[in-house]
Amino acid sequence: MFKSSLQAHKRIAFACHRRAASFSFLPSLKIRVTVNAANSFHHAYSTKPLPKLTAESYPNVTRSSSFKELSPEDMKFFRSVLSEQEILSSTNEEDLAFFNEDWMRKYRGQSKLVLRPKTVEQISKILKYCNENKLAVVPQGGNTGLVGGSIPVFDEIVLSLTQLNKIRDFDPVSGILKCDAGVILENADAFLAEHGYIFPLDLGAKGSCHVGGVVATNAGGLRLLRYGSLHGTVLGLEVVLPNGEIMDSMHSLRKDNTGYDLKQLFIGSEGTIGVVTGVSILTPPRPKAFNVSFLGVESFDAVQKVFVRAKQELSEILSAFEFMDLNSQKLTKLHLKEAIHPLEEEYPFYILIETSGSNKEHDDAKLEAFLEKTMEEGLVLDGVVAQDETELRNLWQWREMVPESSQAGGGVYKYDVSLPLKDLYSLVEAANQRLEEKGLLSPDDASKPVISAVGYGHVGDGNLHLNVAVREYTKDVENALEPFVYEFVSSKSGSISAEHGLGFQKKNYIGYSKSEQEIKMIKDLKSHYDPNSILNPYKYV
Amino acid sequence: MFKSSLQAHKRIAFACHRRAASFSFLPSLKIRVTVNAANSFHHAYSTKPLPKLTAESYPNVTRSSSFKELSPEDMKFFRSVLSEQEILSSTNEEDLAFFNEDWMRKYRGQSKLVLRPKTVEQISKILKYCNENKLAVVPQGGNTGLVGGSIPVFDEIVLSLTQLNKIRDFDPVSGILKCDAGVILENADAFLAEHGYIFPLDLGAKGSCHVGGVVATNAGGLRLLRYGSLHGTVLGLEVVLPNGEIMDSMHSLRKDNTGYDLKQLFIGSEGTIGVVTGVSILTPPRPKAFNVSFLGVESFDAVQKVFVRAKQELSEILSAFEFMDLNSQKLTKLHLKEAIHPLEEEYPFYILIETSGSNKEHDDAKLEAFLEKTMEEGLVLDGVVAQDETELRNLWQWREMVPESSQAGGGVYKYDVSLPLKDLYSLVEAANQRLEEKGLLSPDDASKPVISAVGYGHVGDGNLHLNVAVREYTKDVENALEPFVYEFVSSKSGSISAEHGLGFQKKNYIGYSKSEQEIKMIKDLKSHYDPNSILNPYKYV
Repeated sequence: MFKSSLQAHKRIAFACHRRAASFSFLPSLKIRVTVNAANSFHHAYSTKPLPKLTAESYPNVTRSSSFKELSPEDMKFFRSVLSEQEILSSTNEEDLAFFNEDWMRKYRGQSKLVLRPKTVEQISKILKYCNENKLAVVPQGGNTGLVGGSIPVFDEIVLSLTQLNKIRDFDPVSGILKCDAGVILENADAFLAEHGYIFPLDLGAKGSCHVGGVVATNAGGLRLLRYGSLHGTVLGLEVVLPNGEIMDSMHSLRKDNTGYDLKQLFIGSEGTIGVVTGVSILTPPRPKAFNVSFLGVESFDAVQKVFVRAKQELSEILSAFEFMDLNSQKLTKLHLKEAIHPLEEEYPFYILIETSGSNKEHDDAKLEAFLEKTMEEGLVLDGVVAQDETELRNLWQWREMVPESSQAGGGVYKYDVSLPLKDLYSLVEAANQRLEEKGLLSPDDASKPVISAVGYGHVGDGNLHLNVAVREYTKDVENALEPFVYEFVSSKSGSISAEHGLGFQKKNYIGYSKSEQEIKMIKDLKSHYDPNSILNPYKYV
Repeated sequence: MFKSSLQAHKRIAFACHRRAASFSFLPSLKIRVTVNAANSFHHAYSTKPLPKLTAESYPNVTRSSSFKELSPEDMKFFRSVLSEQEILSSTNEEDLAFFNEDWMRKYRGQSKLVLRPKTVEQISKILKYCNENKLAVVPQGGNTGLVGGSIPVFDEIVLSLTQLNKIRDFDPVSGILKCDAGVILENADAFLAEHGYIFPLDLGAKGSCHVGGVVATNAGGLRLLRYGSLHGTVLGLEVVLPNGEIMDSMHSLRKDNTGYDLKQLFIGSEGTIGVVTGVSILTPPRPKAFNVSFLGVESFDAVQKVFVRAKQELSEILSAFEFMDLNSQKLTKLHLKEAIHPLEEEYPFYILIETSGSNKEHDDAKLEAFLEKTMEEGLVLDGVVAQDETELRNLWQWREMVPESSQAGGGVYKYDVSLPLKDLYSLVEAANQRLEEKGLLSPDDASKPVISAVGYGHVGDGNLHLNVAVREYTKDVENALEPFVYEFVSSKSGSISAEHGLGFQKKNYIGYSKSEQEIKMIKDLKSHYDPNSILNPYKYV
């Protein structure tokens, strides 16, 4: 294998990624459910133990008495609005398991009714009825959320957007896409690819998550560094309010300064004040050239220095700057089994850099110059550059498979935080130290609940993912981590939820990131738009 | 002069812009007021006729009786909060003329009191008092607005942000800038330039407009194509609510998903539900290389085709794509007098393309390839490329001076609209036709009120500026244009205000761009946050 490193006496020539052939590449992260015609559901994770009911795990959370229980009259109404195929109703908990559980198997609700409408008018009627009759509702997209936001806590009705899944319109001159909320992200991107455009957001769950869910949770993901947040790229939304009113703001204008930008309220509102049913979004031209480089460095300090260099040298073509710590790679190696890691030696930190642009030759030259400099300066110790599409995907899997690998040993406590760059990794060190001090952590000793706390994430966005890989979920571990993690983040003026949202998990912790005045205004908006609190109760705020 | 064109038998070598030496380059568009120590004000436009009072021009708009008139007790309170230097009070209309008039000299208010606080706490006290005592308030930044939004209509108190003008913080690793609302845009950009960063927004009034004003009006400007809208780049705001409460959301995190994104409500709210006092914004690395090319084309169809080509070929380095029609250039030639137009021949349409990137050589190569192709295909008929910074600025002036040139003959009716690209120019044609049919238009005959209706704008954003250059403002012209222009835009599903906002001018026309449901929700938010309607009354919605 032809590979350069600092030791190679300044002879900087980046390796073609020859080990790729032996990688066991996983073509996509379709770890979600499959639905057959007969409406039975199979879980990719169904061999894992059944999670406890959320109501049992969190006995302090009690069902609100203001909500009515589902009655035969209610069912009669729903049958008048929806066809049989659009209603899943059962008292057998297995039947609706997919809709009652999150994919981490951390939360489990007790809904007896799932509605799967095909039109916005149906959704309007459903919400109007539920609002008038005080029936609690949980809007649900691809159910790939990480904070229990799309799972009922008690007997809330699940409103699934799965069947509202059409592309509505696409303009190949402006690049503006309009689609239903239930379109799967990967499908939207594949559609755009045919027209030379790209969805301005990408994330590991793309094979299952919905465009509407992505917007409702203001997902960040892997392309934010390049294309910015959804608050900038979403041009319009169609939203059904709790009272059944339809806000049709499906505009296709890049600029429109006529009144408050209402749609912004619903981006990141996690289904608490309205149900997103349609999305209009500006999509950029699909880059013609992609490069991916996978690097090993000595310290988190070096990660930061390489990042500043990348912003300067790669500037407009830099589309991802991800880091992974050694432990995250160890877990991924364990999980991927057959796959060979891109770098032969172990390094304390790894960096994945992606460039995307319109001219391969220019991008190659910029990347090469950048890598030469950073290696000459001793910042980068080793690295490879993907030579083709397959190698590129192989390198990406060492970042994209970290979440699943963290989960593979039994479970995972996930924290998704924003921190000032200089403090980004200190949280992982502090968490490991605390778990060790409490005698909860051992990579080898199966009697300890925690395998390892690993860190990775989007350096370009100041966004760390702290994953605490566990053999089982225990109160000891949870108590060791919470509110410790939130207090740590708050002390550094960070955010306790960078991109995953608040959901059920962080409802009580918003005070670590927001001031009293802000929380007051947030609660005030919630009660203004949803006075009966029927939408996604027990969550968010 | 060395110049290539299609006629030059495929010998495509773009001209060095040798006529630059003779350009009378205007270094910046500081057309606003100068303030000396003794607080007297001089207008750059003071030779123009005094505008009629807005109250006289629009007799249907009457002063709301719910507002109290300013009393000696009120003055006593303001003196307890502000120093003498922070209070401008006069019954002599000349003294406060700057604050009562817009720069187009179209609107004139009758305020007798201007408050110029230096701290957010002072602003909080002022608003609390005004809210409790039903005193109407107009927040005012650099007063460069184009829809009469920052001008009192009757005797509203002007709350000027001019003296709240400090840079608060800058992080050279992340590029996050925090500053007071009253910092002048050009000063913010100059500060950033020292650190290798750039303000992600630029516009003609940069020498006078405030960062806070830009945010409060959601200004678009010249860099939107590259850096996106303020809804994506603004990370946090400090806002004083009408009741005096301070919303301190001056976050410096690129990602934060904890609660509704409150700041978004105030971006583009035009001072109607809160006063923006501080801004936290993500700024990108300052490009190392800029190119500007000025092209002549045959038709608006060619403009569109060149645009699609530019998106494909220049992609990530394309930072502006502006078009100007022939009439706009004729007016600008008249106004600039000594300056020589970049292109010798006249063309029906002109295009200004800017690229900005990190590697001059690469950018040059991309631009050259793009120009070669578009000329070979006969899309571009002639053009020049700036060879240095001076030439670059000279080329830009033929775009940036259009607004002032449209105004120079006496006055201008400005319409700033979004339209689907294919319909973008049809509005200009329709407006000229209508004005001619009504016998109101003649470029030469000084007895006709209208000189010319010209079109230019940001093709990349689907944003047209229709400027109707007039010798004087008359009701005949206004009636010929309104609601005609709005109806035309509405029929094409466009926006009647792309980036200028609603202000006073378009308050009654929002229905052409927004649905009843949206307007209901907008009004609902206004009354929710400002139940006494003290902030910027008679405007917006």
